[in-house]
Amino acid sequence: MKPSIPKGTRDFLPAEVRRRDYIFEIIRKHFRRFGYQPIETPVMENLTTLTGKYGEEGDKLLFKVLNNGDFLGKANSEDLAAKDSNKVLSSISKRGLRYDLTVPFARYVVMHQNELAFPFKRYAIMPVWRADRPQKGRYQEFYQCDADVVGADSLLYEAELTQLLDAVFHELGLKAVIRLNNRKILAGLADIAGMADNMMDMTITIDKLDKIGWDKVAEELATRGADAGAIQVIKQFLDAKDLATVAPLLAESSVGRQGIAELQEVFDLVASQPIHNRIEFDVTLARGLNYYTGCIYEVAVDTTAPGQEKIKMGSIAGGGRYADLTSIFGMRDMPGVGISFGAERIYDVLEELNAFPADAAEDLQYLLLCLDDEALAHGFGLVSRLRARGVHADLYPKTTKLQKMMKYADQRGVPKVLIIGSEEVKTGNYSLKTMATGEQEKVQEKDL
Amino acid sequence: MKPSIPKGTRDFLPAEVRRRDYIFEIIRKHFRRFGYQPIETPVMENLTTLTGKYGEEGDKLLFKVLNNGDFLGKANSEDLAAKDSNKVLSSISKRGLRYDLTVPFARYVVMHQNELAFPFKRYAIMPVWRADRPQKGRYQEFYQCDADVVGADSLLYEAELTQLLDAVFHELGLKAVIRLNNRKILAGLADIAGMADNMMDMTITIDKLDKIGWDKVAEELATRGADAGAIQVIKQFLDAKDLATVAPLLAESSVGRQGIAELQEVFDLVASQPIHNRIEFDVTLARGLNYYTGCIYEVAVDTTAPGQEKIKMGSIAGGGRYADLTSIFGMRDMPGVGISFGAERIYDVLEELNAFPADAAEDLQYLLLCLDDEALAHGFGLVSRLRARGVHADLYPKTTKLQKMMKYADQRGVPKVLIIGSEEVKTGNYSLKTMATGEQEKVQEKDL
Repeated sequence: MKPSIPKGTRDFLPAEVRRRDYIFEIIRKHFRRFGYQPIETPVMENLTTLTGKYGEEGDKLLFKVLNNGDFLGKANSEDLAAKDSNKVLSSISKRGLRYDLTVPFARYVVMHQNELAFPFKRYAIMPVWRADRPQKGRYQEFYQCDADVVGADSLLYEAELTQLLDAVFHELGLKAVIRLNNRKILAGLADIAGMADNMMDMTITIDKLDKIGWDKVAEELATRGADAGAIQVIKQFLDAKDLATVAPLLAESSVGRQGIAELQEVFDLVASQPIHNRIEFDVTLARGLNYYTGCIYEVAVDTTAPGQEKIKMGSIAGGGRYADLTSIFGMRDMPGVGISFGAERIYDVLEELNAFPADAAEDLQYLLLCLDDEALAHGFGLVSRLRARGVHADLYPKTTKLQKMMKYADQRGVPKVLIIGSEEVKTGNYSLKTMATGEQEKVQEKDL
Repeated sequence: MKPSIPKGTRDFLPAEVRRRDYIFEIIRKHFRRFGYQPIETPVMENLTTLTGKYGEEGDKLLFKVLNNGDFLGKANSEDLAAKDSNKVLSSISKRGLRYDLTVPFARYVVMHQNELAFPFKRYAIMPVWRADRPQKGRYQEFYQCDADVVGADSLLYEAELTQLLDAVFHELGLKAVIRLNNRKILAGLADIAGMADNMMDMTITIDKLDKIGWDKVAEELATRGADAGAIQVIKQFLDAKDLATVAPLLAESSVGRQGIAELQEVFDLVASQPIHNRIEFDVTLARGLNYYTGCIYEVAVDTTAPGQEKIKMGSIAGGGRYADLTSIFGMRDMPGVGISFGAERIYDVLEELNAFPADAAEDLQYLLLCLDDEALAHGFGLVSRLRARGVHADLYPKTTKLQKMMKYADQRGVPKVLIIGSEEVKTGNYSLKTMATGEQEKVQEKDL
């Protein structure tokens, strides 16, 4: 039998795990530094928790776990005879794999509300599962990296999360452009364009500007009920490059004015501190409008930065404010704001830019190669002492041809090997070879 | 709707996640230091990979994932009509959740054999799923922490893994007793007691010595086919406290002599280096004999150590050598040796001993509380600068009664709060309060 793994899932080799961990660790470090706390929820959730939260399409993409034991026992015979999968489902499966980190977080906040201090700042870096058709860069099992603060509506958090995005990409050595908008500005635009009733249509169309250009957008707006005046107002908007230009256009809309004021405050707070990446207002930024109610973020690779011009990649992080996280589970008044890093895309970008540090792939510092049995016994003592001192060291477990051992060292990706023969055992002067250069020097135990 | 999670699964609060991570991080640190490399495999494996690998009982305890879409489409109508869950299963489910880390590792080695350098040393710290009846301390979703080296039969690895067990428990501040035996010694005992054909029966009975005492063990051995002579030989064995006493008893068994020699070499290697815990030979140690073929380990809390006398807990780590990891997947000659830490049990022991470091539960260093709006603006700047310097700091996001903010600080478990009012903004001399003692002092930004 030739073994395989499910389509859309992956095995990771050690060097890949280490490079993925390099990204996760930087994200985690800044989450912690900013006061976000780790929580964990089970991989399996009750289907009552998951179903209906991601739309009809989402329900189909949920992985469902079969009940254990005689799972058909409780199924309806007629439904079985009709092979009606939908009807049979609820009687044979009551659990599913989590589809994102947000719905489990909402459930968690409701269940543990009396154990949490609000504002509650949490992060989670965990895999999720979706039965999407697998394709390049899209997997059925992948990680999400989320930070959210709930139970507070202070704009300080919008500013802080902007700083957090900035800090992470700075430490990753990636120049990013962090785009901000506010859902209330879009609502204001819909107001004054007379499209308040089909704001969603309007925003979905505007969101395509980058891809299809203004003429097509204008056409589509017309088919979605915008008259000539509305289209002109929208055009003015989309041409605006800063808040100061947009503000007068929204003078007549109270929600619009509020959006401007909120975003201005966030920009002012962010501007009051040093920042490493470009922060931009983008009136065309929409994201998932059902959910977000205030500030929204989207981060992309800054293709104007030297060396990054050729990167073609969509958003690598995003987020926003929502008025209500938990009412789907019966708990009201739980506003929040959060961000999410697209770690898998960030991985691809860093790889393309060759921007992983050299030691991200292998953290072994020394491999000891021994030329005879006496040297091997000596090597065991040496490697034991090195490890006790915190050095990452390994010992080739037998004596064989040096060439074979060097090949192993090469495959392991270890930067330096220590060669030990009878002379070295006697004198304690070891031959240290740097793999990258072939350079060889004499060292003693204390030098390692 | 009142939300819930599946029975046998858990949510973790931030302090619990941090304390669990404290354990995982120490284990991971030593895995890496000893040259073990991280790999990751998917949570979902094909059922063809999992089924039949854990016995009939194990097959029942596998969580199976329902095929997506119209899963009943391919099911046999007669089997459905008969509600024959077993027969229907294979047509509606082709994936399951991993049950342990060993079978996925074997599959991984076979699939990636051309990408790996042997000896291949890997570790994995990942959850597994079993549909066991949930009970105190037993969950359906729990972590395993495994390190294995495959593709080598050197006893240096047995010694190294003993050192690794020693290093981890030492750093956890837990005195442990590491018991060793060798499957070949048990085979030798079966040889000379004339029980080679029912060695498994013999070992299972011996394994109960601790629980039921010698008289019951002797009775049970008799019912399992041991004659008076055999029982006397076994008694002599079980009374032996060291290898030197056992060795002459096995003089006539070649496999027995080999086991003695192997174990002696491991003890000699381990004894050649400093060690922090008790290392003992235990001839009654058996573990899963089907699988192991050489050295076996089991670690328990050392109840002779001061302060640990009252701990009642079974094994907290274990492992052993196997002759063959991968032939279930068609690849021969892949011997190895590995260990596994029982992180969930270690957690319970550390909690009972109150042995978690104080800062394992919360890593926020400072919480800033601001008494008016000007102070809040100042606080945002200060918290931003502290974070940029790598300090873990947070800011209460609005001004309210100090008492309310102090209550929040208390709930967050933060060690120190910084109180900022108009005076502090003017002078830059902040009031720093230590939560545990109530002590208050004046500090400046550079002191934090």
